[in-house]
Amino acid sequence: MQHQKLGILGGGQLGLLLTQAAMRFPVSVSVYDPDPSCSAAGFTDRFVRGDFSDFEKILAFGLDQDAVIFETEQVCLDAILELEKKGVRVYSSPQTLSWISDKALQKEKLVSVGIPTADFVRISGSEVRSYEGPFPIVQKWRRGGYDGSGVCIHTEKKSIQSAKSVDSIFESCVDIAMEVSVIVARSRDGDLVIYDPVEMVFDARANLVDYLIAPARLETAVTQELYVLTKTMAEKLDFLGLYAIEFFIDQKGHIYVNEISPRPHNSGHHTISTHITSQYEQQIRLALGLPLGSVDRLSEAVMVNLLSEEAQGQTDYKGLASALSIPNVQYTFYGKKEVRPFRKMGHALILEKTLEKALERKEDIRTKLIITAQ
Amino acid sequence: MQHQKLGILGGGQLGLLLTQAAMRFPVSVSVYDPDPSCSAAGFTDRFVRGDFSDFEKILAFGLDQDAVIFETEQVCLDAILELEKKGVRVYSSPQTLSWISDKALQKEKLVSVGIPTADFVRISGSEVRSYEGPFPIVQKWRRGGYDGSGVCIHTEKKSIQSAKSVDSIFESCVDIAMEVSVIVARSRDGDLVIYDPVEMVFDARANLVDYLIAPARLETAVTQELYVLTKTMAEKLDFLGLYAIEFFIDQKGHIYVNEISPRPHNSGHHTISTHITSQYEQQIRLALGLPLGSVDRLSEAVMVNLLSEEAQGQTDYKGLASALSIPNVQYTFYGKKEVRPFRKMGHALILEKTLEKALERKEDIRTKLIITAQ
Repeated sequence: MQHQKLGILGGGQLGLLLTQAAMRFPVSVSVYDPDPSCSAAGFTDRFVRGDFSDFEKILAFGLDQDAVIFETEQVCLDAILELEKKGVRVYSSPQTLSWISDKALQKEKLVSVGIPTADFVRISGSEVRSYEGPFPIVQKWRRGGYDGSGVCIHTEKKSIQSAKSVDSIFESCVDIAMEVSVIVARSRDGDLVIYDPVEMVFDARANLVDYLIAPARLETAVTQELYVLTKTMAEKLDFLGLYAIEFFIDQKGHIYVNEISPRPHNSGHHTISTHITSQYEQQIRLALGLPLGSVDRLSEAVMVNLLSEEAQGQTDYKGLASALSIPNVQYTFYGKKEVRPFRKMGHALILEKTLEKALERKEDIRTKLIITAQ
Repeated sequence: MQHQKLGILGGGQLGLLLTQAAMRFPVSVSVYDPDPSCSAAGFTDRFVRGDFSDFEKILAFGLDQDAVIFETEQVCLDAILELEKKGVRVYSSPQTLSWISDKALQKEKLVSVGIPTADFVRISGSEVRSYEGPFPIVQKWRRGGYDGSGVCIHTEKKSIQSAKSVDSIFESCVDIAMEVSVIVARSRDGDLVIYDPVEMVFDARANLVDYLIAPARLETAVTQELYVLTKTMAEKLDFLGLYAIEFFIDQKGHIYVNEISPRPHNSGHHTISTHITSQYEQQIRLALGLPLGSVDRLSEAVMVNLLSEEAQGQTDYKGLASALSIPNVQYTFYGKKEVRPFRKMGHALILEKTLEKALERKEDIRTKLIITAQ
């Protein structure tokens, strides 16, 4: 292999961590993002400012690369389909993005190959506020949702009156016992690697993952069922690249697919330290035409999202020195110069021998480190 | 803490790995190097081209930063002393660089605090070729040596005739049983962390480290003696920042300091994966005014230097896909676009449970991956 050019569409935290993984390969990295102060912009000598919907600009950006990867589903589908047609390696497969980026199509695709997912109906934007029931019901926008926005639980008719009138699916509520995520990568040759399932615990206030436990505390049979479902999806739905699949497990132990992301995922940050090959490196390897890496686990971990306070302005990390003195924790900050309420500002990876001790450390981090406005 | 500006003097592989560690902190990184195609140049939006001896340029570069770190002893000492005087945080301590960068002063400093080191004499450039013996003798240039250049063993009078006539020290040969390296970081408050000793095995052909075993296979008493010597040096010689100390252990078990580097070191690459806090992160933490991190070991490892063949030209990684399929290996390439004979092009970290298995993997890597010219 010779030195290659790699383009990353999106320079948020996932783009930053993709850049970090790419640094270890013989590549020149370019980053494309609408925001010139995004996390990754400072870590490339080739930053291009552009909208994710700009077909021409993404095409021009991509045609200058040997390979292109993306950190967001919002990227112009036609542009990456065209890039692939012109011989640029694009990961994950634009074909899969075409149905993943629309939650109605995604659900229908799952149903078509027999993968369990909560019952749902399509509701057009104009129909949303005249929905009659039953309640509770989960409204998911078909397109453009991100980090908890675009998902809303309506418990009664009144809440529907103020719902956003966008094309949606309305999905039955699952009586959730646990939410887990499974990350899978699949190559053009059909090689497949699956990471251990991860348990996600949510922050109800911010509607974001609060922390996760890797691997998830599951019975072997459940873990095996998750592997089988993941492998089936990857093969029947032609996965090519790296995907995160979020599952619900209900009180009776039934498993449902919640949603798929065709890219590295917040629930896989820990793989940088806990696995031989991180989720980010897998995507880089595929993009460069290299084989997948082994996913042997080196250690267990608890990953804590570091959200900012309900504040707005220039970022201040209060108590950082104190937090950095807590042993057995690895911090990653995303370098975001501005805070917004509950913005993802970084994460902490706790590498302790017992879960009990790790959860203690988590509380200690939360107490000591306050990310707020100056 | 608020967002900071960090300058890195030197953009080779150490500068690249310092940048990689800095990416996880809220900092904007600038890189200064004479070579605009150096490893780290592509991974910053603020690259400054300049010579390491250019006082004015380094001063201007540094005055724009909150903190400055360096990857090479060749950096203009007066410039970084001046930066420190003007309130820029500089790591490791320029005061220590002032005697470390001259091997005669370094040896005299060691002797002055009772640290064992091989006997030596100063020999001026004009005296080198008239040296009469005894033989064998090790010639070390007082300044400017790097990666095996600047160190030469003369076995007889004949070889002295073609020796480089530069100010040198002539050092007695130690009957080496093992070479080890110990990395230590010390903060302004006197906090101290010491990494496990690492065993270095040399490639005689290239006069560079071939591979290293972390931790070194030493009896506990020897490890303890290394810790004591390291702590003594750090405290008596006012270490401030991160230092690598290379030791000889002779056939009788006597320990001698070979040399000190006031910066992250090739013998500490593995700490990125094997320790909670890497050597690179320690230097970043200190530069940002943050406390040192814990150095608990997560795993053992064998680190293999990936040198290019005896070739010159545009880099080609032959057999890369095949090498990347070897399990339990993490690769880091430095993105050098040109090979030279035996140039350091990357390293592989082998994370196997037994040393035997790791050494097998090492041979497998060597067989499969050939880094040469196109």
